[in-house]
Amino acid sequence: MLDCAIIGGGPAGLTAGLYATRGGLKNVTMFEMGMPGGQITSSSEIENYPGFFEHGKTGMDFMDTWQEQCFHFGLKHEMKKVDRVSKIDNHFIITLESGEEVKAKTAIVCTGSTPRRAGLKGEDELFGRGVSTCATCDGFFYKNKPVAVLGGGDTALEEAHYLSNICSEVNLIHRRDSFRASPSTVERVKKIPNINLITNTVVEEILGDTMGVTGIKLKNIKTDEISELEVPGIFVFVGHNVNNDVLKNEDGSFICEVNEQGQVVVDLNMRTSVDGLFVAGDIRIDAPKQVVSAAGDGAVSALQVISYIQEQV
Amino acid sequence: MLDCAIIGGGPAGLTAGLYATRGGLKNVTMFEMGMPGGQITSSSEIENYPGFFEHGKTGMDFMDTWQEQCFHFGLKHEMKKVDRVSKIDNHFIITLESGEEVKAKTAIVCTGSTPRRAGLKGEDELFGRGVSTCATCDGFFYKNKPVAVLGGGDTALEEAHYLSNICSEVNLIHRRDSFRASPSTVERVKKIPNINLITNTVVEEILGDTMGVTGIKLKNIKTDEISELEVPGIFVFVGHNVNNDVLKNEDGSFICEVNEQGQVVVDLNMRTSVDGLFVAGDIRIDAPKQVVSAAGDGAVSALQVISYIQEQV
Repeated sequence: MLDCAIIGGGPAGLTAGLYATRGGLKNVTMFEMGMPGGQITSSSEIENYPGFFEHGKTGMDFMDTWQEQCFHFGLKHEMKKVDRVSKIDNHFIITLESGEEVKAKTAIVCTGSTPRRAGLKGEDELFGRGVSTCATCDGFFYKNKPVAVLGGGDTALEEAHYLSNICSEVNLIHRRDSFRASPSTVERVKKIPNINLITNTVVEEILGDTMGVTGIKLKNIKTDEISELEVPGIFVFVGHNVNNDVLKNEDGSFICEVNEQGQVVVDLNMRTSVDGLFVAGDIRIDAPKQVVSAAGDGAVSALQVISYIQEQV
Repeated sequence: MLDCAIIGGGPAGLTAGLYATRGGLKNVTMFEMGMPGGQITSSSEIENYPGFFEHGKTGMDFMDTWQEQCFHFGLKHEMKKVDRVSKIDNHFIITLESGEEVKAKTAIVCTGSTPRRAGLKGEDELFGRGVSTCATCDGFFYKNKPVAVLGGGDTALEEAHYLSNICSEVNLIHRRDSFRASPSTVERVKKIPNINLITNTVVEEILGDTMGVTGIKLKNIKTDEISELEVPGIFVFVGHNVNNDVLKNEDGSFICEVNEQGQVVVDLNMRTSVDGLFVAGDIRIDAPKQVVSAAGDGAVSALQVISYIQEQV
């Protein structure tokens, strides 16, 4: 029986593993199919993780420094896919894709969320080199430069507003002539002088060269007119998939409380509605989707796991 | 008028400053009397901040790497003491010790908490070199070694339990023969084989040499018997002072909701009961008192400040 099963190996899962093992738990396994590191490894530069500030270092370099540390205290890594986490009696069953079942006293689920891509020509090739899904992370790299934003929901408009404080010009591209975002947000964004609303328009292609994005090709769907916009960056906000499949029962219902978006409801201690089940990072409600916050969640969840196990004695 | 006043310059305040300025806020000032860095600067070694794992580096070295980064995006530092934060109409007044008043649209209070010291002979001299107030931080440095714990409350007993999973032996020293901790915690701790309860006993002196703590001198207050215990580490748990004075009105009441211990009540977004007032780090309820969690709080609070200011437009 594991003391703790950690599902997912991004910043939250790694930090949970560090704190659980350094806190004296003997049997802690992190289940992560790929190399640990998470979303941030696809980032071309990182400058907002406190204490890490080396120009030109990529997300991959950055997570590299975490590996030795997080595994140093005895965390084990299983390169296996988890299908389902369920609670039976007073313990958890981690069902692997292979059908194998692993027992654990506690579980911390850190499977994150995945920003959806728009499926544009050039998008995957230029991802991390001008194509971004995070204004907080990457906006500053376009300080005093023009950018494009794709989307028409609340997130797209909020993020366009955020970018307008940093960038010279924000071109918001939306396929319809009205927005799904709340009317008050739309009104607010319309008043901002350096946001251009380009409606009834789709992105035909993201243009770039070996250095990264150089512009986007647009098509007005009312007039079929084609145009090009020179921008070094485009932010795609077409939604997030919350990676909560492991928390579903076979009938598709969830084993713990989630909100309408499928994000797991937690308190400040990362406790879910199920005793002994914790989550950390982007899978939870109100996640700021930042490495340092996910890592903070991971630390708290592991300390709570240790307390929980102590109290079971 | 400042966009944001940050009170306190530890990991939470520095990270809040980084995120607020990198997010495009122009006028952000951090008020911190001393050098930024916080409690962790007095730590002799740090190994649980993800991404920082260099043997022998002290807390001071560690925070050193934060300075350039956190000030790089325009954060200002005022070496002035804040007496009080108050809200008038739709903005905040930061009253400095000098009597000067600074206006701000928002405030993030990150003044932390201060572990109380027991006032023992040798305690201050050996602090950070065998004397600790944080089991999560420093317990691992005594893996398979005996340690002493001083205190009789819930924290002392919980932390003794935590240390019992790591250390060979935990000697819990308490001046009375019964414990203030909850009965269930006392019963649980009594059952742990490697915890010795040494009651009716006070620490007369912490003994050490240039390398650090070597032992403690004990006195049984019933028999006056003096003894020595050889341990390389002692954990002092005699309470925390929450540094919440800046949040008090002149009549001593608080401007926002706090709990019985004086910790500020927040939600997952670090919002307090007062619009536009945020807190981050050890001053809040349920704070795990870890650098990475305080930094995570700082990031979230700054992102919330940016949203709050955007919505005021």
